[in-house]
Amino acid sequence: MTRIETDSMGAVEVPAEHYWGAQTQRSLHHFDIGRSTFVWQRPMIRALGVLKKAAAQANGELGELPAEISDLVVRAADEVIDGSRDADFPLVVFQTGSGTQSNMNANEVISNRAIELAGGKLGSKEPVHPNDHVNRGQSSNDTFPTAMHIAVVCELQRTLYPGVEQLRETLAGLAERFDDVVMVGRTHLQDATPVRLGQVIGGWVAQLDEALVAVHHADEQARGLAIGGTAVGTGLNSHPDFGPLAARRISEETGIDFRQADNLFAALSAHDSLVTVSAALRTLAGALMKIANDVRWYASGPRDGIGELVIPENEPGSSIMPGKVNPTQCEALTMVSAKVFGNDATVAFAGSQGNFQLNVFKPVMAWSVLESIQLIGEACVSFDLHCARGIEPNTAVIEQHLQSNLMLVTALNRHIGYDKAAKIAKTAHREDKTLRQVAVELGLVSEEDFDRWVLPQDMTRPSTS
Amino acid sequence: MTRIETDSMGAVEVPAEHYWGAQTQRSLHHFDIGRSTFVWQRPMIRALGVLKKAAAQANGELGELPAEISDLVVRAADEVIDGSRDADFPLVVFQTGSGTQSNMNANEVISNRAIELAGGKLGSKEPVHPNDHVNRGQSSNDTFPTAMHIAVVCELQRTLYPGVEQLRETLAGLAERFDDVVMVGRTHLQDATPVRLGQVIGGWVAQLDEALVAVHHADEQARGLAIGGTAVGTGLNSHPDFGPLAARRISEETGIDFRQADNLFAALSAHDSLVTVSAALRTLAGALMKIANDVRWYASGPRDGIGELVIPENEPGSSIMPGKVNPTQCEALTMVSAKVFGNDATVAFAGSQGNFQLNVFKPVMAWSVLESIQLIGEACVSFDLHCARGIEPNTAVIEQHLQSNLMLVTALNRHIGYDKAAKIAKTAHREDKTLRQVAVELGLVSEEDFDRWVLPQDMTRPSTS
Amino acid sequence: MTRIETDSMGAVEVPAEHYWGAQTQRSLHHFDIGRSTFVWQRPMIRALGVLKKAAAQANGELGELPAEISDLVVRAADEVIDGSRDADFPLVVFQTGSGTQSNMNANEVISNRAIELAGGKLGSKEPVHPNDHVNRGQSSNDTFPTAMHIAVVCELQRTLYPGVEQLRETLAGLAERFDDVVMVGRTHLQDATPVRLGQVIGGWVAQLDEALVAVHHADEQARGLAIGGTAVGTGLNSHPDFGPLAARRISEETGIDFRQADNLFAALSAHDSLVTVSAALRTLAGALMKIANDVRWYASGPRDGIGELVIPENEPGSSIMPGKVNPTQCEALTMVSAKVFGNDATVAFAGSQGNFQLNVFKPVMAWSVLESIQLIGEACVSFDLHCARGIEPNTAVIEQHLQSNLMLVTALNRHIGYDKAAKIAKTAHREDKTLRQVAVELGLVSEEDFDRWVLPQDMTRPSTS
Amino acid sequence: MTRIETDSMGAVEVPAEHYWGAQTQRSLHHFDIGRSTFVWQRPMIRALGVLKKAAAQANGELGELPAEISDLVVRAADEVIDGSRDADFPLVVFQTGSGTQSNMNANEVISNRAIELAGGKLGSKEPVHPNDHVNRGQSSNDTFPTAMHIAVVCELQRTLYPGVEQLRETLAGLAERFDDVVMVGRTHLQDATPVRLGQVIGGWVAQLDEALVAVHHADEQARGLAIGGTAVGTGLNSHPDFGPLAARRISEETGIDFRQADNLFAALSAHDSLVTVSAALRTLAGALMKIANDVRWYASGPRDGIGELVIPENEPGSSIMPGKVNPTQCEALTMVSAKVFGNDATVAFAGSQGNFQLNVFKPVMAWSVLESIQLIGEACVSFDLHCARGIEPNTAVIEQHLQSNLMLVTALNRHIGYDKAAKIAKTAHREDKTLRQVAVELGLVSEEDFDRWVLPQDMTRPSTS
Repeated sequence: MTRIETDSMGAVEVPAEHYWGAQTQRSLHHFDIGRSTFVWQRPMIRALGVLKKAAAQANGELGELPAEISDLVVRAADEVIDGSRDADFPLVVFQTGSGTQSNMNANEVISNRAIELAGGKLGSKEPVHPNDHVNRGQSSNDTFPTAMHIAVVCELQRTLYPGVEQLRETLAGLAERFDDVVMVGRTHLQDATPVRLGQVIGGWVAQLDEALVAVHHADEQARGLAIGGTAVGTGLNSHPDFGPLAARRISEETGIDFRQADNLFAALSAHDSLVTVSAALRTLAGALMKIANDVRWYASGPRDGIGELVIPENEPGSSIMPGKVNPTQCEALTMVSAKVFGNDATVAFAGSQGNFQLNVFKPVMAWSVLESIQLIGEACVSFDLHCARGIEPNTAVIEQHLQSNLMLVTALNRHIGYDKAAKIAKTAHREDKTLRQVAVELGLVSEEDFDRWVLPQDMTRPSTS
Repeated sequence: MTRIETDSMGAVEVPAEHYWGAQTQRSLHHFDIGRSTFVWQRPMIRALGVLKKAAAQANGELGELPAEISDLVVRAADEVIDGSRDADFPLVVFQTGSGTQSNMNANEVISNRAIELAGGKLGSKEPVHPNDHVNRGQSSNDTFPTAMHIAVVCELQRTLYPGVEQLRETLAGLAERFDDVVMVGRTHLQDATPVRLGQVIGGWVAQLDEALVAVHHADEQARGLAIGGTAVGTGLNSHPDFGPLAARRISEETGIDFRQADNLFAALSAHDSLVTVSAALRTLAGALMKIANDVRWYASGPRDGIGELVIPENEPGSSIMPGKVNPTQCEALTMVSAKVFGNDATVAFAGSQGNFQLNVFKPVMAWSVLESIQLIGEACVSFDLHCARGIEPNTAVIEQHLQSNLMLVTALNRHIGYDKAAKIAKTAHREDKTLRQVAVELGLVSEEDFDRWVLPQDMTRPSTS
Repeated sequence: MTRIETDSMGAVEVPAEHYWGAQTQRSLHHFDIGRSTFVWQRPMIRALGVLKKAAAQANGELGELPAEISDLVVRAADEVIDGSRDADFPLVVFQTGSGTQSNMNANEVISNRAIELAGGKLGSKEPVHPNDHVNRGQSSNDTFPTAMHIAVVCELQRTLYPGVEQLRETLAGLAERFDDVVMVGRTHLQDATPVRLGQVIGGWVAQLDEALVAVHHADEQARGLAIGGTAVGTGLNSHPDFGPLAARRISEETGIDFRQADNLFAALSAHDSLVTVSAALRTLAGALMKIANDVRWYASGPRDGIGELVIPENEPGSSIMPGKVNPTQCEALTMVSAKVFGNDATVAFAGSQGNFQLNVFKPVMAWSVLESIQLIGEACVSFDLHCARGIEPNTAVIEQHLQSNLMLVTALNRHIGYDKAAKIAKTAHREDKTLRQVAVELGLVSEEDFDRWVLPQDMTRPSTS
Repeated sequence: MTRIETDSMGAVEVPAEHYWGAQTQRSLHHFDIGRSTFVWQRPMIRALGVLKKAAAQANGELGELPAEISDLVVRAADEVIDGSRDADFPLVVFQTGSGTQSNMNANEVISNRAIELAGGKLGSKEPVHPNDHVNRGQSSNDTFPTAMHIAVVCELQRTLYPGVEQLRETLAGLAERFDDVVMVGRTHLQDATPVRLGQVIGGWVAQLDEALVAVHHADEQARGLAIGGTAVGTGLNSHPDFGPLAARRISEETGIDFRQADNLFAALSAHDSLVTVSAALRTLAGALMKIANDVRWYASGPRDGIGELVIPENEPGSSIMPGKVNPTQCEALTMVSAKVFGNDATVAFAGSQGNFQLNVFKPVMAWSVLESIQLIGEACVSFDLHCARGIEPNTAVIEQHLQSNLMLVTALNRHIGYDKAAKIAKTAHREDKTLRQVAVELGLVSEEDFDRWVLPQDMTRPSTS
């Protein structure tokens, strides 16, 4: 069952059960690229709904749309926002580089649904026209980047911050809990002076905190919206107050403080603030890579690795071997990091390729940033729930490693002098003995003195040696 | 409705309508990351089916499996190959880095379906056990990379080569058709000596050809399979002839010439040949970027750009302005290129991160390479059908540009000397006249001589000037 | 002529004319990698000098060093700061990943020069010991990243900001100067509604401003210094007040507000703030890529391109053809952008690869960020001096393009209605005539009305149409 | 002291002691970007000399140049080839994107030196003109990419292959030498079934071999030269036989089999074969990253890491702690890998940005590929000499790890059944005992049987279990 929809190129058959119109249908025909993966998802669809609602409100308030038209658009847009119309957004990322077809998809769906609400005939464009009313005072060139920014900023709040912060809180809790677990420090992968497990994990927390600062900076930059720029940034065909007012309505709808971008020409022809968001996500991914690597190396073993941390066993690691706990959450998280790095390369490349008044890599930039946000957010939750929360020190191994660590000898310097201390260490290394054993054997330190002087805990903070 | 499935960690409830078992269910629970996008698709599922079928055949022939078990596995695997079991593969990319859970997913689905074919009870592991039979002589560590290579190499044949070659043939046809269209050459974006449109398009064809050479080299390297390496590359628990024989059966099933990899330790701990495939796809994407950019710049205008090519108008470019044909296929293709660049960054990063006997970034590498293959293949088809085939020279503009091109003056050098020729050019530039007009006005060349001497067509090939 | 220097591994011959010692000499021997390019330059050498001076001051004030030793170190370090000792820093980037050898290079040179100032014997380590005095309370693991941050932050102030701002001011001046030049807008490379040249260039300025905001954020993050963390972040063997005090002295020496990093474990094991700096430089490079591309496309021609801008002719573009002004400054700038993108990939990769208490990719990160800073800063100055300042509109071309632009027809909508306006445009396009000509020929608009109604200038701002 | 040189823009003062001319001097003035690092080095200067010599020979043979002129150019070019004229090549990478200024630099230096050899006056262009003679039948647009390819291919032979193969041979020797050292295998960083050290190192060798195959493929593609294409690919102003003949002379001069590129339009407007070379270098860098990581992890310790390999101690790791051997060669090598990844990102980005008949990112592509070649070649030599050759197994640690490895239990399956074997493993894990101890304690296996059955060596090859 089909019905006829028209646009300036003529008539097109569309599936009767869908609200979309001619331009959406043409895009379906012409862009059969990546359909198994790259159909727009909730965040962009919702953002388009938010935008169209806010635009209708602003136009209504400014007298650019009759109240009844504005109301109909708002009602239809609300259904786009709440997910009821998702099945009517069938387009893929790889389409017009301005996102025109997705903007028209939104216009067509909202127009037809509004017509339906008004008791009209789908495709009639009466009483709600997709261009003249739903797209009033707008152009794809300003609406699509506006929707991109709404989607990205909203997803940061909805997915990324909660996910990362959940993990951060768990790690901060562990750092506190294990603050007195003294263990071997390692630099160059070589045994070094001691650290406390709390300090190690505290370093991870600090990395997340620092990365989040950069994400928040980028988030702030991304809150400037292109709305009001229309086709080339001049705002032609929009009311002078439309952009700022629409931005205010968007803020109300989302509960997030958006504003019109300072420069609309830049906002159409470049998407540098999304590049900055992407870069901040990459820094965060790099931090997560470091953290996940540390966790799996500390948990390596069970017998023949570092083995100082124990992580939860979520699935069979080996059908016969107990204790082979594969660090699968670390693996998923580091794979996510690698994907975020790649997405970021796409975004930065695409972001540099604007010409004149338009950058036509908008959809792929939006998709890639949103994907990175989703992946990091979900991977942090997964890593938190199924790994981080269950991290425990293997105190026996930690203690054994700590005691065998030749670097402890530095604690003897101030008591017996550097030369004797070095002699102890060299002998212990050559004869594969402990420092304590050698110190006593060589008659340089008594057992009591050794235990009184060599206090790893004391070596985990500044001193005047 | 659920049923109970078990693995070495115990019992798990799984949905009754699906064939998967306990380990798949555990993975569903533990890896809720990117589910809206990253569920494995046909190419990997099919490759797992091909692999499991070939393994069962090889084990049967080597006496490692009873014939009836082997047959049951083959029948069940055939359903995985043909797509009938796709709904039973619910797992995502971001899981164990070895792909263990997807390997087990295949083992479980095939085992249960084989049990069903034999009249047994799902979950009973009788008479076909997921590990002992379906995974016989295998480990995730060799099967998953084997499936990765099968999927990648098959998709190259199925999607990439046909798509790129279809576009290549169209362009080669255009190069021939327009070989006598002489136009302005451009270097540094500045007017230069003439070229023929056939030469321009022939340059694009040559880029595709050269890029395909590199893809074929990489394809050849990727045909070495890890199968037979089992857990660490030694082949422990597999029959010595298993790997090579399974590779032969895989070749038969796919019609593509696979072989066991030369070194199984490298085949598990690194996936450099996939990095090489990815890099070749990136080179190809770079070539497509150049081609698409040329097309859209040549088609820029309609009035105030280069305007020398006309491309098909597939959708409304502007509701009021005729002739504004947005190069949307170019935009989609260049966005695909940017995505392929990003996927390649992911793959190369991931590929460098192996440790000891395993690289645990397998799933994200497989996904990213497969995505690039699909995107390039489909984008080339789209670009061919909806743009390349319809490319036409705008001969009026081409001719006008050619005639106004001051670089044609070089043709006069041998007739009137460099100094007089330069004088003509400088005057023409200063006074904004044509060379012909100025040459005649200055009395340096007659109209007849000018038309006889200044033959752009002759300037499109080597000469001794 | 050589002299003997010693370290804990024994004696080494070093060139008599240089101040460096045994460890520097060993590094020269063991790291013969990239010597033709990657020898450390002024910014890092100076930063090491600043650090060592500040450390000596802090240790002196805290009683950790005798005043006369502290003074000697300060005097010798001053020579490292002012460039007098550059020839004594022969090491390359590709050395120990902690930068240990460059830290020791600084210790050795300062120690020997201080010894000389005190009338002692080079290599004697009396009265100023490279480790005990110059490296007092320090470790390579905290000093080298401290020097990295000092170098990067100082170079941002010294090279990057002035260079970019110089270009920004020139562009801002042009934007103002050319604010009333109305020209064709272009989206999708297709003619669109008009913009003013001032708006176009203002968009470039806005991109630079936005990018600089991100650089300043990153700069602020990078001002936290690792100093005081010593070997593993605990600060072992340093006075508890040493780090903060040294940071204060560094601030005084440089006139830039540094501080000790909030978390010293993160500061040694990750360099995320440098990744963030690098990313901000990449965003800036992407903006410069867009600007340089716009300039060269606007200047393309002279006859057969866009040709709306004229740029300075700095070198012969063609020996015979006047007006072929190759946009070489754009080319240099975009090549710089491509290099910055690559450097950033290096930095982000390296930054993700820390393990436990140390990231051992420090030198390559420092080098790459410093190189990007230098390149952007110098390229912006070059682009400003030799291109941007000389940009002029080609008003004849601009006006001709503007008048031929069919998009102007939209200005007629409100006067004669959409249908008649569209008819004019379609006819003009089909018959290759101007809108004005067709409007009059069709009897739809008089010449006077056309000139009164079609005012491109008015189309460059919002309106209620 | 200066002299006057002229070009088509007029007169310029150049330093009297240098051979370069006006265009080089103009470039020095206009491109003050990255001068501290990016001045062209031997490989490109030599390649320009080779090219100019071959061109003079070809032109001489074809009658395009008088024999005496050709001879003079050849003699002067020989000095460029042998390094005598390096000081006359002062230009940087960030110049005209076609490399025009470096091409002119070569033309000017060779012309002036040839004039000098002929007893003429520098700057007189008599009897040897930089354009008419040295650049005869050429354009920067074909010569510079020709020189790029010559430089890259020559450096592959001179630096990369020998360096990598030297390391490869050392590793192959180690693989043979240590073939019977059985050690714990590790997957997911977890203990797994045994491997032989020879197999581990053999895997590294296989990675290098596979990577080299890809480099050789790329090398082969890069041997096609742009020469003969002149300004836009048509070969205008060159003799039809010039390109192929010059390629032959280049082959003779270098001893490497070059040829004219199949398609000269692609050879000027794209440099995809250099992108392919760069990508192959990146794959190689990824392999080296994996190898270096394995080495440093295997050598981690000395007490509290894996500790199974011992590497040479080249410099003091710690002033007091013996046995702390920092894997500094691994660190240098992995930093090189990170740099090669970044260079490759630059090259691929740049390679995608050609327009019409020219890609104007030539210099930065050439520089980046050459840098990667040099770094990999030199780093491999360094890693070989100062690390790989000295790698020794720590057999005591290896044996202890092997014996404690619970995965050995799988060898008991066929003798006592899976259930009893699993019981032994679980008990050993829980009670932290060896398998042997538990097996005997539980009365399941005698000491003699255990030693007869549990043969790790046998577990390092395929079996029918």
